Amino acid sequence: MAGSSIGECFRVSTFGESHGPAIGCIVDGCPPGMPLNEADIQIELDRRRPGQSRHTTQRQESDQIEILSGVFEGLTTGTPIGLLIRNTDQRSQDYSKIKDLFRPGHADYTYLQKYGRRDYRGGGRSSARETATRVAAGAVARKFLREHLGVNIQAWMAQMGSLHAETFDAAEISRNDFFCPDAQAALRMADFLDALRKEGDSIGARVDARVTGMPVGLGEPVFDRLEADIAKAMMSINAVKGVAIGDGFAVVEQRGSHHGDAITPTGFQSNHAGGVLGGISSGQDLTLSVAIKPTSSIRIPRQSIDVHGQSAEVITTGRHDPCVGIRAVPIVEAMLALVIMDHWMRHRAQNADVQAPLPPIPA
Amino acid sequence: MAGSSIGECFRVSTFGESHGPAIGCIVDGCPPGMPLNEADIQIELDRRRPGQSRHTTQRQESDQIEILSGVFEGLTTGTPIGLLIRNTDQRSQDYSKIKDLFRPGHADYTYLQKYGRRDYRGGGRSSARETATRVAAGAVARKFLREHLGVNIQAWMAQMGSLHAETFDAAEISRNDFFCPDAQAALRMADFLDALRKEGDSIGARVDARVTGMPVGLGEPVFDRLEADIAKAMMSINAVKGVAIGDGFAVVEQRGSHHGDAITPTGFQSNHAGGVLGGISSGQDLTLSVAIKPTSSIRIPRQSIDVHGQSAEVITTGRHDPCVGIRAVPIVEAMLALVIMDHWMRHRAQNADVQAPLPPIPA
Amino acid sequence: MAGSSIGECFRVSTFGESHGPAIGCIVDGCPPGMPLNEADIQIELDRRRPGQSRHTTQRQESDQIEILSGVFEGLTTGTPIGLLIRNTDQRSQDYSKIKDLFRPGHADYTYLQKYGRRDYRGGGRSSARETATRVAAGAVARKFLREHLGVNIQAWMAQMGSLHAETFDAAEISRNDFFCPDAQAALRMADFLDALRKEGDSIGARVDARVTGMPVGLGEPVFDRLEADIAKAMMSINAVKGVAIGDGFAVVEQRGSHHGDAITPTGFQSNHAGGVLGGISSGQDLTLSVAIKPTSSIRIPRQSIDVHGQSAEVITTGRHDPCVGIRAVPIVEAMLALVIMDHWMRHRAQNADVQAPLPPIPA
Amino acid sequence: MAGSSIGECFRVSTFGESHGPAIGCIVDGCPPGMPLNEADIQIELDRRRPGQSRHTTQRQESDQIEILSGVFEGLTTGTPIGLLIRNTDQRSQDYSKIKDLFRPGHADYTYLQKYGRRDYRGGGRSSARETATRVAAGAVARKFLREHLGVNIQAWMAQMGSLHAETFDAAEISRNDFFCPDAQAALRMADFLDALRKEGDSIGARVDARVTGMPVGLGEPVFDRLEADIAKAMMSINAVKGVAIGDGFAVVEQRGSHHGDAITPTGFQSNHAGGVLGGISSGQDLTLSVAIKPTSSIRIPRQSIDVHGQSAEVITTGRHDPCVGIRAVPIVEAMLALVIMDHWMRHRAQNADVQAPLPPIPA
Repeated sequence: MAGSSIGECFRVSTFGESHGPAIGCIVDGCPPGMPLNEADIQIELDRRRPGQSRHTTQRQESDQIEILSGVFEGLTTGTPIGLLIRNTDQRSQDYSKIKDLFRPGHADYTYLQKYGRRDYRGGGRSSARETATRVAAGAVARKFLREHLGVNIQAWMAQMGSLHAETFDAAEISRNDFFCPDAQAALRMADFLDALRKEGDSIGARVDARVTGMPVGLGEPVFDRLEADIAKAMMSINAVKGVAIGDGFAVVEQRGSHHGDAITPTGFQSNHAGGVLGGISSGQDLTLSVAIKPTSSIRIPRQSIDVHGQSAEVITTGRHDPCVGIRAVPIVEAMLALVIMDHWMRHRAQNADVQAPLPPIPA
Repeated sequence: MAGSSIGECFRVSTFGESHGPAIGCIVDGCPPGMPLNEADIQIELDRRRPGQSRHTTQRQESDQIEILSGVFEGLTTGTPIGLLIRNTDQRSQDYSKIKDLFRPGHADYTYLQKYGRRDYRGGGRSSARETATRVAAGAVARKFLREHLGVNIQAWMAQMGSLHAETFDAAEISRNDFFCPDAQAALRMADFLDALRKEGDSIGARVDARVTGMPVGLGEPVFDRLEADIAKAMMSINAVKGVAIGDGFAVVEQRGSHHGDAITPTGFQSNHAGGVLGGISSGQDLTLSVAIKPTSSIRIPRQSIDVHGQSAEVITTGRHDPCVGIRAVPIVEAMLALVIMDHWMRHRAQNADVQAPLPPIPA
Repeated sequence: MAGSSIGECFRVSTFGESHGPAIGCIVDGCPPGMPLNEADIQIELDRRRPGQSRHTTQRQESDQIEILSGVFEGLTTGTPIGLLIRNTDQRSQDYSKIKDLFRPGHADYTYLQKYGRRDYRGGGRSSARETATRVAAGAVARKFLREHLGVNIQAWMAQMGSLHAETFDAAEISRNDFFCPDAQAALRMADFLDALRKEGDSIGARVDARVTGMPVGLGEPVFDRLEADIAKAMMSINAVKGVAIGDGFAVVEQRGSHHGDAITPTGFQSNHAGGVLGGISSGQDLTLSVAIKPTSSIRIPRQSIDVHGQSAEVITTGRHDPCVGIRAVPIVEAMLALVIMDHWMRHRAQNADVQAPLPPIPA
Repeated sequence: MAGSSIGECFRVSTFGESHGPAIGCIVDGCPPGMPLNEADIQIELDRRRPGQSRHTTQRQESDQIEILSGVFEGLTTGTPIGLLIRNTDQRSQDYSKIKDLFRPGHADYTYLQKYGRRDYRGGGRSSARETATRVAAGAVARKFLREHLGVNIQAWMAQMGSLHAETFDAAEISRNDFFCPDAQAALRMADFLDALRKEGDSIGARVDARVTGMPVGLGEPVFDRLEADIAKAMMSINAVKGVAIGDGFAVVEQRGSHHGDAITPTGFQSNHAGGVLGGISSGQDLTLSVAIKPTSSIRIPRQSIDVHGQSAEVITTGRHDPCVGIRAVPIVEAMLALVIMDHWMRHRAQNADVQAPLPPIPA
């Protein structure tokens, strides 16, 4: 049953395989009257685009966005925004060798078992290529959030393997190849990846994110809590294996007297909660962490089976990211934008005229 | 906008406040012909029920389930199953003192800001009492999964504060007050909680879960991946701050050559993925961890403000769980049952007649 | 797959069979702060309630509504409103004779074929009894629409068999047993039904409706047009076989020069469109007609088969409405309220801050 | 809030304006393994395409379909099918004159009031051009229904103005310019339209449809009844003002003894119900009628206002259909295919393993 849509009010539906003619999406429900052009989206796509440094896949996709509808005279009209990206560098021949194999850690086996067939070229629908459409749709949401509501979303490489970002300089994030806020750590990451590439191996990563300027009141208990929909959105990104809000798994060892964020007339005194209380945004910064597994496409030989159930050795020789966590950074931001935008609209549907008893009191 | 429903094919909608007349839910879409009676549900509710040991809230709720519809002559009919639980031990007077206060870590502030008003009696809708309806609905799904598909779901207390379950004896889980698979650890937990209660403090916990007998093919990429919907379901449970599938956050430091689960003709050689590849169940056991924050209702005085924005000290004196993680165990199981059931039906809608090329090859 | 919910923002989920312990519903997404008590709902239920005149079924249901949640201190809280009605007069024995028969025109056959079993007592889920929950939920929406937005909804018996309401006196609608705006026609209807009852037969009806005070801008093209969701809601009512908006089927013979409603600075000059243009409310009155088939439960013997496929004669001897169109009047109103309320919220989600270029110009 | 998607399991999302770069849609949830190529879709698009006779708009659109995803090696893969149609003959200059005017009967006024702006070129999103994407998506569903389930869908022009099709020859439907099953009536329609075109006026129509080979059991009471979702789908088509199932509005004057379709061991004896009982398909042919208003774009001058609220005269001089009912025929078929396909999948989700007690007994 159809699973390629996300959002209720700001609904994004995507299509496209890695090596088909094109990928794209429909952004339905965008508020009208927002200035929007291709450049607004292209700037975000370019951050995710492969082939921009030696540390990501050398596939050369221009990822040129085309707006097909929903914008007139430079402004959104409120009707669905059709977005299209042509695939230009497919090299399908790279994949003929693994056509009948299940690459360990890949979706090859599960897609075949679920659907009885699969587009084996570059992972087909399960390829990270699909995330370009998320970034495109996210760019629309993000622009609205930023310009209309003052919401800013920032993600960064917090950890790659055992290498941590130890300092935080927001300006540094866009300066290195890793979206890393610590210039020194970025240098170590470069060296580490150079070595890893030679070995033909890959590495996991942790991406952290912070959203500032959060409106109070977003989230729809009891199931569609803000953090629940964020968790879903994050875990829907390829390779994500864990999601944590605020203090995340550290809460396991915390006491209530420590965890509960004290409040004073001038603001919250801490933010262990990560900006969500009872499933609803508190107006504090939203903070979260995402764990991203190492790419499954590696050159090191591994044991597997073929589609006939026979033993086989797998070596993946296509162009791949040794650390998908790098390019996950703009994707995490995009998915956050989609969820927050959707929840802002959902909140407005029910509570547009509610007078909050207090002015917001973020930390 | 409405957020109290979950599931597409097996859809559960809930209602009810902690201190209103009743809580309940509708289970819509259950396959017809399944034997079902109150006892099938009561047995699960009794596991979650408060007041069963000195370690959980002393509120005495009988949590008596009543099936109002959808069952005829002992079998489900395929029509909505209405489930009702009357609240019997509300003691609303306990809450008058905190009527105008925002308890740190609680949803008091966010509910008031979102809706402009709130039912302050016992947390109202944000109370963990709401989760009884999840357990009731989950019992229906769980019975179907177990009896019809051979799927078994088990969660347990893996860690309370710094106390870990160090051994795993499945039979032990139901023998102690903590759903702990390690009898020795359970003794330590009891001592720890006795001390904690005296201090008036609370503690976090980690609940782990495993699902055996998983069908292959469940999950609807790209957004409604199985792990994405599980993450949402888990994070929709009160007090949950983190969700991890398979190796979870440990993947950050893993290499691809380690993480990718090798396959042989006789099965997977490991299960780092936790039973999901590309958003679709592989047939391996589903494994996950959930981080649960310490209860925010503690007797230790804390700094906060009142509804007028004035400084105030808060002491929560009602009956509360010092470790909500304990009662979270059956709730985690129930939410897993709901998601898996829903995805089994979703998969069937599209792929009921697909011939999987291979027999399942779980580890 | 779950089909007992309606609405996106103002979402109603229902449960219950004719002869089970209770029927009920959850109203999720209601804006907070609206005064609401049982009497607000009871007044609408009493209009639909059976046994109020000799012209409707003599089943005696008190249809006593109980609000289980979502209201605190007399005001809606924004959380789900649980509504419950106990069944009190079931007389299941009446149905034992037709347990194995398919009554012509009834859902007996299709429920059994779809689900493999059915609750045969009084039609089970397919009974018109289910509509009581729609009226209860509709009462909540209707109160909001009336008091908050000035929207008024009125339906009436426009035609019963060949008897037409020839005059329209709004005050008369509540004075006779048929919701008929023409007192003379009502007298003829009474005589006609008395004769029909003796024959053991039943008759069809046309119910018309008008909504005044419509906001401009409701409806979400291209699929969720206002008239599309209204058509669905109407056709979801038991026994409805046709829905028409504005001039309805008369448009087949109209010319464009006649049909298109001219506009002047002081308003629309006609309302052939029935208040909807391009799927969006124009601010004119919403007008519609609904065709309701004759009750299938009649005393006249008919030819059918039993559950073994054998020929059988069917006589329905339970307590039934000779003209279900009568009690359909409040149900049509309730369903209209649900759709308009939902669409008002949906519109607000996307367009709450849109400045309409013109003040509304209804006729 | 997003309204450009339809269907739960077989979900279609559309985008595109009349005079933008392209229109298109995503078909999500299609069962895998079905042969599909552009020609399968093009053949349906060509039936709806404008400019094929003098009786429809002279706009020359090639309506060339491109499949962008979801098909691999000639078979559907189960992933979303992206479909694209470039707009090639826009002539936007035709519309500059009515940029600031509200054409009577058009969506100009409501779009502007709802969204605060509108794409005035050719009606933008409200143009019938949007329906090409419905036909494209419908072609996918239709192929599956026909080849996999033996379901056949046929619609035809039953009445244009006061001209009725008086005989029914299925083969004739594709032979004339009106999809009319009566060759003689088609000749009269041609003459009538020739005269009408000279007057610059337009005319309404009634389109009837019949679906044969219906599976028993489709439809999800109580709200998502089969006829309810059909009514919505029909009323979501531009210009549709009425929908009737089976005997439709004729039931108003019918008696129960006449309306209820008798059943014998060899089949139903009549089909007043139109193939649906209690919201669920009975296996009989599905029959319905749709009322389509006359095109609002006519050359006859009409009174209206401009966007400043000032009086204005409107003459529509673009290329338009004098009877939109003609091209509605393939659109009605497409929407029927979408609804039936979706409901077949929905039914399967819940009831795939139900053993129907009886073999189907259609008339």
